[in-house]
Amino acid sequence: MADPWQECMDYAVGLARKAGEIIRGALKEEISVMTKSSPVDLVTETDQKVENFIISLIKEKYPSHSFIGEESVAAGEGSILTDNPTWIIDPIDGTTNFVHRFPFVAVSIGFVVNKKIEFGIVYSCIEDKMYTARKGKGAFCNGQKLQVSGQEDITKSLLVTELGSNRDPEAIKIILSNMERLLSIPIHGIRAVGTAAVNMCLVATGGADAYYEMGIHCWDMAGAGIIITEAGGVLLDVTGGPFDLMSRRIIAASSRAIGERIAKALQVIPLRRDDATN
Amino acid sequence: MADPWQECMDYAVGLARKAGEIIRGALKEEISVMTKSSPVDLVTETDQKVENFIISLIKEKYPSHSFIGEESVAAGEGSILTDNPTWIIDPIDGTTNFVHRFPFVAVSIGFVVNKKIEFGIVYSCIEDKMYTARKGKGAFCNGQKLQVSGQEDITKSLLVTELGSNRDPEAIKIILSNMERLLSIPIHGIRAVGTAAVNMCLVATGGADAYYEMGIHCWDMAGAGIIITEAGGVLLDVTGGPFDLMSRRIIAASSRAIGERIAKALQVIPLRRDDATN
Repeated sequence: MADPWQECMDYAVGLARKAGEIIRGALKEEISVMTKSSPVDLVTETDQKVENFIISLIKEKYPSHSFIGEESVAAGEGSILTDNPTWIIDPIDGTTNFVHRFPFVAVSIGFVVNKKIEFGIVYSCIEDKMYTARKGKGAFCNGQKLQVSGQEDITKSLLVTELGSNRDPEAIKIILSNMERLLSIPIHGIRAVGTAAVNMCLVATGGADAYYEMGIHCWDMAGAGIIITEAGGVLLDVTGGPFDLMSRRIIAASSRAIGERIAKALQVIPLRRDDATN
Repeated sequence: MADPWQECMDYAVGLARKAGEIIRGALKEEISVMTKSSPVDLVTETDQKVENFIISLIKEKYPSHSFIGEESVAAGEGSILTDNPTWIIDPIDGTTNFVHRFPFVAVSIGFVVNKKIEFGIVYSCIEDKMYTARKGKGAFCNGQKLQVSGQEDITKSLLVTELGSNRDPEAIKIILSNMERLLSIPIHGIRAVGTAAVNMCLVATGGADAYYEMGIHCWDMAGAGIIITEAGGVLLDVTGGPFDLMSRRIIAASSRAIGERIAKALQVIPLRRDDATN
């Protein structure tokens, strides 16, 4: 039997590439910025335009499918994950980077059936790097197969994470004290390029050994999550338990040993789940 | 009169490009890692090989010039800056990135006469981006003129800095509490790509609004420092006073207003100067 979702994936790769063209075009124009949950949670007309572009073209072709898109949710649509084939979309992962023209901005598309990610696409459009993974078929960047580092020794590890857009003083304190505990192990270092999806893809390439973050959303993780696992990595919850796409938190590691060691160091920030209904 | 240092600069651009080729070649081989000042202050044979390559070819052509190179200093040579034409060289800025194949690694060359930087070269060799600046002639990346953002409002700013390789608990606490104070202003965010030179070049492109760091060395700043000022930015000490190349600390900002506001937020870490003699 032919792979039922391969056609969807091929179609989505083409859409991600066109979305990236729209974003690169918008970088040449004036960018007008609005805010969402906090004065530093930014959104632009391009976020909304790119999400509408992607969703409308998928809906036309697959009218029975469901959608969870960052900007649709911001506009009031729900984000309950059902068993129906569901496209989870972040039109611009790294909107703050986009606003500043800091050169890491990604289109992220994850495709989930029966609550399992079937394929993921992350197009880092300024770098022109197209990361893709299909369940059971490996992960690739511009056609080149990806493999995580496999590093198991935390003291030889390079991590990626973000300071995030939460400016609640308590959250900032926990984020920084988590870094303090990790640095003191010691580890080689921590990097932050400003997009969850690209950070995770850097783990998939072997360039970093793990990524962790709390406060992100399912659309930041769905595309890159399967790119990590298909490159040989593991996804864990920040407690070390099983990863939950709707939990707003993740450890994506090159080995279970590194992932669990990070989990041991992390203090958890209380967060409202993406699928909370009240 | 012809520009007396333009020939040196043209020669150095060619050397930086060849050094980048050596580094890219080394990324394809096994990398054997040694440590310097701490278990996370890394060095490789490639650092030493590239520095020897650059210095020996410059010495051949300009035998009367002086040199301050990261690996020569590590091997016991002095780093006193005189009025003599002096080449200040970091063969691999971002050695930890290099070891991990995290894709930001730069060759940095600064040329100083009478203690003033005359030109600077930063070759981000995995990205193949050649940043250059000659005093009074502007800053360029792959031939394209650079201009800082000019942002003056700290609450709309994106900063770059690093957590560094100092694992002294007191230093880590100050580095993180400085971040806490800046995030709380609030600012848009903080990024860290793992090399001082590339971070500074990102400010020169306008992609970030300021870079600050304490604990780096003259060879991390000499090349990129003039790229910032020729792109319209300013260099300050972390106290807000005049920048001092040998002080191991810097604020490189797109405007004086942003630089001074960062200085106000920073607690200073005590450091041994690069030119300390005891």
